[in-house]
Amino acid sequence: MLTFFHCPHTRSSSIHYLLEELGVAYETEIIDIHAQGGASESYRTVQPHKKVPAIRHATAKGDVVVTERAAITLYLADAFPRAGLAPALDDPRRGPYLTSVVYVDAVADPCLVAHLNQWQYEGKGAAFGTFADMVANLERTLTTHAYAVGDRFTAADTQWGVMLYWAMDVMGLFQDKPIFRAYLNRLANRPAFQRFAKAMAAAA
Amino acid sequence: MLTFFHCPHTRSSSIHYLLEELGVAYETEIIDIHAQGGASESYRTVQPHKKVPAIRHATAKGDVVVTERAAITLYLADAFPRAGLAPALDDPRRGPYLTSVVYVDAVADPCLVAHLNQWQYEGKGAAFGTFADMVANLERTLTTHAYAVGDRFTAADTQWGVMLYWAMDVMGLFQDKPIFRAYLNRLANRPAFQRFAKAMAAAA
Ligand SMILES: N[C@@H](CCC(=O)N[C@@H](CS)C(=O)NCC(=O)O)C(=O)O
Ligand SMILES: N[C@@H](CCC(=O)N[C@@H](CS)C(=O)NCC(=O)O)C(=O)O
Repeated sequence: MLTFFHCPHTRSSSIHYLLEELGVAYETEIIDIHAQGGASESYRTVQPHKKVPAIRHATAKGDVVVTERAAITLYLADAFPRAGLAPALDDPRRGPYLTSVVYVDAVADPCLVAHLNQWQYEGKGAAFGTFADMVANLERTLTTHAYAVGDRFTAADTQWGVMLYWAMDVMGLFQDKPIFRAYLNRLANRPAFQRFAKAMAAAA
Repeated sequence: MLTFFHCPHTRSSSIHYLLEELGVAYETEIIDIHAQGGASESYRTVQPHKKVPAIRHATAKGDVVVTERAAITLYLADAFPRAGLAPALDDPRRGPYLTSVVYVDAVADPCLVAHLNQWQYEGKGAAFGTFADMVANLERTLTTHAYAVGDRFTAADTQWGVMLYWAMDVMGLFQDKPIFRAYLNRLANRPAFQRFAKAMAAAA
């Protein structure tokens, strides 16, 4: 049993897409983060900042709660290996895969928020680098490979895909370059992405 | 063969400490991030933002480069399982372990930088939450358990430990509470921490 704590049209969408790619059964619990004062205080025992996403996985060894998108992504892709979305521990792609998944949350996301808000943060000690370096990094990656980690789709692409869709198509923060468009099109052709997009539209 | 791209007294210190805990042989390559214009442009092929830390691991299947502290931490703790610093894939602590390691970079670090710079970022769409929630989260964790993930030391503690040391003892951003002090003391008693602290002092 897998419970997905979700709020449509927020950052939990990337986990929604991942769950569709994994093809596993899950129950969705909608968290009303837009309520006055945010989600109910009881939800804090699940997510310490009362944010989405989170998952609860009932395993033979007990219930496991996982928060933070990158951690949820890594956890689920390993927990459901049949989907083949995570390179194995001894696969040389494992390191770059971990880097790619972490980078989306620790670098790309704050870069986008800082850019959106026009924060001047260079020289202020932030661990996330410049927006330009981040965009260049993704562009370089997609120039040499079809996916975020080499030429095979991995769980990293569920995180990059949803972020790039939001940044480029919703917010216009990324320039609509052919290389980014081709990548989004590769994802959009996937049945799981189509199921995700349909559910997202229905929740509009 | 393991190469550690490092600059003393920066964020790469937490990986330095982890390497000491793992007890593996490694070579250190000092990256001069304080040079005019930052590290040399050639280093960008290792780290796309020319930042430290990074590692290069020569394996039977080829060279693996890993960047981003959380990713490096997860990678090394799995790659060198004899140290017992990562819960196994089927251990119920695996999920909380992933969350804890990711949280240090994706939430705690930007919260600290934002707090230091007195950024007013609530309601601006940042994925990292409030400083107060972050501090409360660590306090709650250490009230119920001796370490970041339950009662056994894991690689998550190398990341939390170095960050808390910096935030509390160097910067005074954390209140010096007995619960935080007791945790830092538990770490300071470890031989690997002492080796790390000695090397850090020598690099002063
Ligand atoms: N660091 C978390 C945060 C995700 C996040 O920022 N979620 C937002 C929605 S986009 C949220 O739940 N906000 C509700 C609130 O802050 O009260 C992660 O990456 O998983
Ligand atoms: N996101 C990276 C960044 C680490 C980071 O911020 N490193 C700083 C030192 S504390 C750096 O190398 N800065 C050099 C520069 O920006 O030129 C990580 O967490 O591993």
